[in-house]
Amino acid sequence: MGRPDHFFGWAAVTCIIGTMRLVTISDIEAAAEAISPVVLRTPLLPWGDGQLWLKPENLQPIGAFKIRGAFNALSRLPEGTNVVAYSSGNHAQAVAYAAKLAGVKATIVVPDNTPQLKIDATRSHGADVVLVPIGQREARAEELVEELGAALIPPFDHPDVIAGQGTIGLEIVADLPDVSTVIVPVSGGGLISGIATAVKSLRPGVRVIGVEPELAGDAAESFRAGELVRWSPQDRARTIADGLRAEPSELTFAHIRKYVDDIVTVSDEEIGAAVAQIARRTRIVAEPSGATVVAAYPKVANGKTVGVVSGGNIEPALLARLLSS
Amino acid sequence: MGRPDHFFGWAAVTCIIGTMRLVTISDIEAAAEAISPVVLRTPLLPWGDGQLWLKPENLQPIGAFKIRGAFNALSRLPEGTNVVAYSSGNHAQAVAYAAKLAGVKATIVVPDNTPQLKIDATRSHGADVVLVPIGQREARAEELVEELGAALIPPFDHPDVIAGQGTIGLEIVADLPDVSTVIVPVSGGGLISGIATAVKSLRPGVRVIGVEPELAGDAAESFRAGELVRWSPQDRARTIADGLRAEPSELTFAHIRKYVDDIVTVSDEEIGAAVAQIARRTRIVAEPSGATVVAAYPKVANGKTVGVVSGGNIEPALLARLLSS
Repeated sequence: MGRPDHFFGWAAVTCIIGTMRLVTISDIEAAAEAISPVVLRTPLLPWGDGQLWLKPENLQPIGAFKIRGAFNALSRLPEGTNVVAYSSGNHAQAVAYAAKLAGVKATIVVPDNTPQLKIDATRSHGADVVLVPIGQREARAEELVEELGAALIPPFDHPDVIAGQGTIGLEIVADLPDVSTVIVPVSGGGLISGIATAVKSLRPGVRVIGVEPELAGDAAESFRAGELVRWSPQDRARTIADGLRAEPSELTFAHIRKYVDDIVTVSDEEIGAAVAQIARRTRIVAEPSGATVVAAYPKVANGKTVGVVSGGNIEPALLARLLSS
Repeated sequence: MGRPDHFFGWAAVTCIIGTMRLVTISDIEAAAEAISPVVLRTPLLPWGDGQLWLKPENLQPIGAFKIRGAFNALSRLPEGTNVVAYSSGNHAQAVAYAAKLAGVKATIVVPDNTPQLKIDATRSHGADVVLVPIGQREARAEELVEELGAALIPPFDHPDVIAGQGTIGLEIVADLPDVSTVIVPVSGGGLISGIATAVKSLRPGVRVIGVEPELAGDAAESFRAGELVRWSPQDRARTIADGLRAEPSELTFAHIRKYVDDIVTVSDEEIGAAVAQIARRTRIVAEPSGATVVAAYPKVANGKTVGVVSGGNIEPALLARLLSS
């Protein structure tokens, strides 16, 4: 069985701050090839005003774009390498699903307060689930990597994960060649890093705009400051957009500084209203994190625009409430 | 401007009962070519059990498959021919939208008790809306055809409309070559006529199964009887699946008898539960008519199955209620 060293050797050499190697368009094109058998080629859905299209990544098998980065990272491991991830959200599902497709074992470390529904969903893909107190997630995952001779697949802080998410940018440019603006939700920054790299490499004139909840607006503040500004996890946890509570890493922030034009923020009220609007106008279920792009659209509209709806995993009761208000 | 005679000349010659010309695979292949610039090439969404995929026609611009047949019929008219339709539902939107794309005028005759929301939606595509008492819809539409020198685009009872809907069958066979069973909602029968023609022509061994609400099960009864059995409009109006309240015509029933393997029925409770299941598992918004295919799936499962989710135009309040129950 392959050792995780194979996986991290390259990153350890290149991820030195200041001389960090950024993901390239060739990495993303290679990722597109690697993931094409398992990832849905999502269409662009017209919003109906002739100016906005949604890229519905909620339609992916696990309900979020995360399958792209997870499968790409896994596909670059020596054949048969088992994998470990720590996450209670869409990334956990993505790694479990990707491992099942690749015929390897996934072990997912989740906080012991994770809802049973999410644990069951992860197990349904054949993954082992290890419950730990929330503060021990990362340490336990690293132990498991050693114990199992497995490789860790991080949720965003890795070039192969970023390259996988970047395939969305290739598809946008292919499907709407005269796109002017692309709006992308920002959490850890892996999604926007990949998409911005792809879009700016192919079409330097296209604007790439990030969107964050006001209540977790650390990346927007960092963008203005020109350096990473840290918010407490408690502050970032206030927003309804539960997929946008992480913070950028040095690697993703380097991509953002190089390629992203602006990061705007939207209120939780605007996000909730956008979930309902999206259900009515494009007949898809967006989670609050994915709906941020529609909330941001009136603030950044300028020519033909694509908003990346990052996922659709929302509690039915919350969706029902947002539809009724 | 072209006269409606051009449009109906062929139908008038061939739609004689007993010698009726059925739609062929060549008609459907020509339709695929004609509609490709304006219709979304919908992907297949995995249900997650490895056996069922949904064909999400709710993602079409007007939220339903109807755009396929409407645009195909319109594209076969002499250039510049204006169009008339009578419908208060998805077909009205489809004709209005198709006419806007083709740069011709659409006049839509709707009952005077149609909700303002639907009237506004039809007008938003630039169509003229004519309100009449419900019993006068068809007569007024025929008057308008004469007055305006326009062509009538019927919701299902026309070969060009059936051929347009049949393009869904081509896409299913292309995307899932080893499909065993295709499940299709039945109302007027245009959708299943087209799909069954395409699927059986290309893959005679694939089963094509229709699904109807129990409360509007006239086509299922007709199928068993081997001849059209009529239910009253009042009876057919009882089901929650408001898109499945029409009845087959001689033309569509001829296709059904030739190509369809069975028509099953589902209860309104099963349909409502399926709407909620679809939102959770595939993150799309299905209207009750479209959700019938998931309600029918356990009754007809046999090998790899595709269910055609015909549309997604559901009142947000009804969706909220179904998600909460």
